[in-house]
Amino acid sequence: VGRPKFTSDRMYEVTPPGVIMGLAWTAMGGSALYIETVLKRPVDLTNDKDGSIETTGNLGDVMKESVRTALTVAKGILAREQPDNKFFDKAHIHIHVPEGATPKDGPSAGVTLVSSLLSLALDRPVVQDMAMTGEISLTGKVLPVGGIREKVIAARRVGAKRVFLPNENRRDFDDLPEFMKSELDIRFVSHYDELYEHLFQ
Amino acid sequence: VGRPKFTSDRMYEVTPPGVIMGLAWTAMGGSALYIETVLKRPVDLTNDKDGSIETTGNLGDVMKESVRTALTVAKGILAREQPDNKFFDKAHIHIHVPEGATPKDGPSAGVTLVSSLLSLALDRPVVQDMAMTGEISLTGKVLPVGGIREKVIAARRVGAKRVFLPNENRRDFDDLPEFMKSELDIRFVSHYDELYEHLFQ
Amino acid sequence: VGRPKFTSDRMYEVTPPGVIMGLAWTAMGGSALYIETVLKRPVDLTNDKDGSIETTGNLGDVMKESVRTALTVAKGILAREQPDNKFFDKAHIHIHVPEGATPKDGPSAGVTLVSSLLSLALDRPVVQDMAMTGEISLTGKVLPVGGIREKVIAARRVGAKRVFLPNENRRDFDDLPEFMKSELDIRFVSHYDELYEHLFQ
Repeated sequence: VGRPKFTSDRMYEVTPPGVIMGLAWTAMGGSALYIETVLKRPVDLTNDKDGSIETTGNLGDVMKESVRTALTVAKGILAREQPDNKFFDKAHIHIHVPEGATPKDGPSAGVTLVSSLLSLALDRPVVQDMAMTGEISLTGKVLPVGGIREKVIAARRVGAKRVFLPNENRRDFDDLPEFMKSELDIRFVSHYDELYEHLFQ
Repeated sequence: VGRPKFTSDRMYEVTPPGVIMGLAWTAMGGSALYIETVLKRPVDLTNDKDGSIETTGNLGDVMKESVRTALTVAKGILAREQPDNKFFDKAHIHIHVPEGATPKDGPSAGVTLVSSLLSLALDRPVVQDMAMTGEISLTGKVLPVGGIREKVIAARRVGAKRVFLPNENRRDFDDLPEFMKSELDIRFVSHYDELYEHLFQ
Repeated sequence: VGRPKFTSDRMYEVTPPGVIMGLAWTAMGGSALYIETVLKRPVDLTNDKDGSIETTGNLGDVMKESVRTALTVAKGILAREQPDNKFFDKAHIHIHVPEGATPKDGPSAGVTLVSSLLSLALDRPVVQDMAMTGEISLTGKVLPVGGIREKVIAARRVGAKRVFLPNENRRDFDDLPEFMKSELDIRFVSHYDELYEHLFQ
């Protein structure tokens, strides 16, 4: 059947600022899917040129749009939390999704993308052993995604402790057998703010 | 048969400024289709650079053009209502149509797009439980659209109370069985101004 | 057979400045085809930036070029009629052709486009119940177009009183049965100036 789609499930023992563990769902089953976000150069707030965003990782059109949606959401949250922080105006940001040969698409990494952007902007690593999945709307609503069963199995396998799922997927989770649900701290969210308050510390 | 195209029919219990409930018509039937319009950064009226508009949500070419038409119409209305308001000259606007994986096209969200832009520009939420559909012409005429039956069923299902339809679709509505028409406050409009007067308060 | 290509034949009872009734010819027959031209913002003659032109309405490449040709012709006429009028240097113009989902192409809206631009530039509505069709050359020559029979039928149906046709289409018109030709005031023109003198008042 060929090699598995994602070969290195737990890529990070500890995630640095800008890196978030998401969950993917492929024909091969679920897997951890990291979003890596880094600065292409130090931020120069005195520069009058605008920042930029670059994406790599064999992303399809829907996922590329999801990056742009996530950026607007992250900007809005940073503007609310730190009104004087001009990071997103000036930063030259690169978002990569390993592994580069594996095509990835769909909107379900929305919350993961927002989180990676905020983690980079604030230069803070997020709470470890946390995974997440969910489409993001432009106002921060978290919309349901597919593959809950496969993603929960993957989260257990890679040792995630807390998993954020869209509230509208609650029934998909409830339908799983008990042994799959034990030991995981599942948090259902309907708006990104409910996730954000658990992102750091 | 797979999951329905639009899974979260009533995404918003209360819509904030910039968000409007439209009505879509797909092979799966009708559904609520929200337009989300937000600022990418605070408006800086002293900046001499022009604003911009970005769209996401898997929109086809006709719908992308519909956004541009809607923007010109909204600009004209704001110039008439608040001649000194330079919002559209300077604002960096992002329009998103959830859900990101679902392809959307056609001109029938025209009036919804105009409304979301005006709601954002005036920073006012619109009247709640109101839905709308209709193509917009550059001078504000409201042109007929397809799928009236499916859209009316969807409007009832999601709990819309007042629905704006193009005047030229009146016959399509009249042909519906009585039980579908009851309880809805239907308003037929031939020009956007007839809708605008009911948009706020 | 689906719904007709153009559903709202007589979109305007009265056309405002910038809006002209043209005539289109599709696989479904002839129809009125309005050109809508509006300002995206008030003209600022003191601004040192040039104006711009934007088009929407699912226009093909030939029709987009026709817009550019029409703009040059309109500029030349305005420069001759009102040498001090700098409207076209500074105006930000949006040209839209409803209905947005219907693909449109070809050069036969040339004279209609020139007329809509001049009507907007002079801020004057044109004579009502007038329709026109004809390709425009860069020096203002009016060239023959297809579908004269269908366009004449459409002009009658929507209540046009005077119709401008290219002089080189005279034989196509003469071949029509008498009952189609009655009641219409047909004007054959070989240069746009012959149309322009009847455009206003």
